[in-house]
Amino acid sequence: MMRNWLLPEHIADILPATARQVESAKAAMLERFRTAGYELVLPPLIEYADSLVSEGDSALDLKTFKLDDPFSGRQLGLRADITPQVARIDAHLLAHRTGVTRLCYAGSVVHARPAGLLSSREPLQVGAELYGYAGIEADLEIIGLMLSTLRLVGVNALRLDVGHIAIFRGLAAAAGLGSAQTAELFATLQAKDVGSLRLLVADVAEPYRSAFLALPELYGPASVLERARTRLPSLPEVELGLMQLAAIARHLEGQVELSFDLAELRGDYYHTGLMFAAYAPGWSEALARGGRYDNVGRRFGRARPATGFSLDLRDLVRILPERDPARGIRVAARHLPGAAAEVQRLREAGEIVVIDYLAESAGALNCDRELVPAGEGWQVIPFN
Amino acid sequence: MMRNWLLPEHIADILPATARQVESAKAAMLERFRTAGYELVLPPLIEYADSLVSEGDSALDLKTFKLDDPFSGRQLGLRADITPQVARIDAHLLAHRTGVTRLCYAGSVVHARPAGLLSSREPLQVGAELYGYAGIEADLEIIGLMLSTLRLVGVNALRLDVGHIAIFRGLAAAAGLGSAQTAELFATLQAKDVGSLRLLVADVAEPYRSAFLALPELYGPASVLERARTRLPSLPEVELGLMQLAAIARHLEGQVELSFDLAELRGDYYHTGLMFAAYAPGWSEALARGGRYDNVGRRFGRARPATGFSLDLRDLVRILPERDPARGIRVAARHLPGAAAEVQRLREAGEIVVIDYLAESAGALNCDRELVPAGEGWQVIPFN
Repeated sequence: MMRNWLLPEHIADILPATARQVESAKAAMLERFRTAGYELVLPPLIEYADSLVSEGDSALDLKTFKLDDPFSGRQLGLRADITPQVARIDAHLLAHRTGVTRLCYAGSVVHARPAGLLSSREPLQVGAELYGYAGIEADLEIIGLMLSTLRLVGVNALRLDVGHIAIFRGLAAAAGLGSAQTAELFATLQAKDVGSLRLLVADVAEPYRSAFLALPELYGPASVLERARTRLPSLPEVELGLMQLAAIARHLEGQVELSFDLAELRGDYYHTGLMFAAYAPGWSEALARGGRYDNVGRRFGRARPATGFSLDLRDLVRILPERDPARGIRVAARHLPGAAAEVQRLREAGEIVVIDYLAESAGALNCDRELVPAGEGWQVIPFN
Repeated sequence: MMRNWLLPEHIADILPATARQVESAKAAMLERFRTAGYELVLPPLIEYADSLVSEGDSALDLKTFKLDDPFSGRQLGLRADITPQVARIDAHLLAHRTGVTRLCYAGSVVHARPAGLLSSREPLQVGAELYGYAGIEADLEIIGLMLSTLRLVGVNALRLDVGHIAIFRGLAAAAGLGSAQTAELFATLQAKDVGSLRLLVADVAEPYRSAFLALPELYGPASVLERARTRLPSLPEVELGLMQLAAIARHLEGQVELSFDLAELRGDYYHTGLMFAAYAPGWSEALARGGRYDNVGRRFGRARPATGFSLDLRDLVRILPERDPARGIRVAARHLPGAAAEVQRLREAGEIVVIDYLAESAGALNCDRELVPAGEGWQVIPFN
């Protein structure tokens, strides 16, 4: 590939055919967010590294390129995620707002290490966040927005996977697991590695041992929530988690294919409760994901309920049908400036009008019509 | 300022009131480019540093943050300018096109060092470039696009400053100046430091000495071009430069306030010919600038004529009048899902409909109407 020797691995240009698709999908998404009351923010690409990455979030830290600031001498980071920036804005710049704050964004992030073998190191992250309301209705609003955003750009057959990180965390805390053991257990559950899971929980007290072993089996349609009630101990976190999952099932049944998975914990370090991801047939990676991350703003001085979702638009356009580029109208350079007013009128009506200096072909100009003199005025005729 | 202690110097968030303005101005500009036949490209934020900065361009090199690539071990750069990336795309990815190629872009760049005391280190660069045609008509097309792009967003009173770097370069070459002396002379002319200029050219042979001393006086309306013919020696570069400037005067007289300046050489390292900048009353910095940079793609294997312009949209919005944010329609959360279809209808018609969970005030919600039950259906009434 010619493209690769000029650009670093996992980095690519977006060329014309795709670029307009990306821009128009982004504009449509931002318009959808706007009409749902989400205010746009544009946080910067670089910030102090310790603002971008909270202490302990080693996954995000590894993804974040570091830079030396010639001004402050402090370490800067090139953002790898926009959500912490939006949390900073809610906590700090919009701190006079005590009610619900809805924010949205669309911008590039850069990953020092790609998420997967085929992943770009420069995702185009588009997302929406709702701060200040802890009720399940806020999560339903965000899920609804996520699904409608995907449908808006033509992704219709969707499956929604729903999990709840607080159920696992509640079990780990009640079982008295240390943070290292919790992290190892978390990773093993992600890998659905039941053999290692058995070894890991061998010394864990009942009923928690059985509960951890049950988690990988607790996936499927809403009926799985009933099974979970019989197989998991009655802890407050488990009760609340299952109640919220049941509410999701009740509200969304019939609107989207639903799948629950109590061992599906993938998400970001900051997630605290419900987690959800949207899938399309034939694509193994989620198209969009989100969840609750209450108190994400605490390190900026303001702990608030928060829920939101995001997607990588650069990845998403890969599955959208390609559109034929619109064809334009040629005007020979010698006809300017006489035709200038007519050219302007056509352009303002949305037509592409290309000035031709070199008598190029219709194909080279991507034009199917041309503007020619006709009597006192001008007319558009077919151009072969 | 609260904002500053959280963010590095010369770095800022764009908050909701401004962010929508930036996005809609950007969308309008990209639409204008589209209808003029400019194809959108989205080059990456990071590339190999030696692709981003050509050898010898120390100004751009100083502006470019460097990163270490964990994959290739090579040095990456965080782009400080998009024009060299677009040149790479024209030279390399679109090399099968032999005619005119028109490309446009809109994206953030990052400067390790800000351009000025009040400048952002993260300009939002929007621009358009025309490759493959050396004639003055291409520069006129680009100037026209630049002016119409500024007028589109409400900047109407404009002055166009025009200069020509080839005139200075031609004089320096004919006078036999070395590259160090040329660079020093260049900087002195920029600073309009006539005292230093006299010292610097003391040993330069005539007629070049007088020509360099004349340059700072050669500014003003089109009549300055006549004066230049009498005061500058008749070199091919000088002749061609003055001819092109006269063509600009002929074509644009009456359309925009024109000012010529033969000592105004500000531009980028890659500029080779005509240079132009648009100013608005009351603002000392140019709102947009551009010029010819033929052969910019040579280091990517393809030397072509090129001309283009760019602007910093982040800077530009500072001079645009603030718009009142649109007010929305409140709907109490308890009315959902009954009102869901009506909410969707209103949003698709462009209305902002905000779900209210906390019985907030009209001000907090930024709503001036609310959606309430009315008989079997719903109606929108004023909300105080």
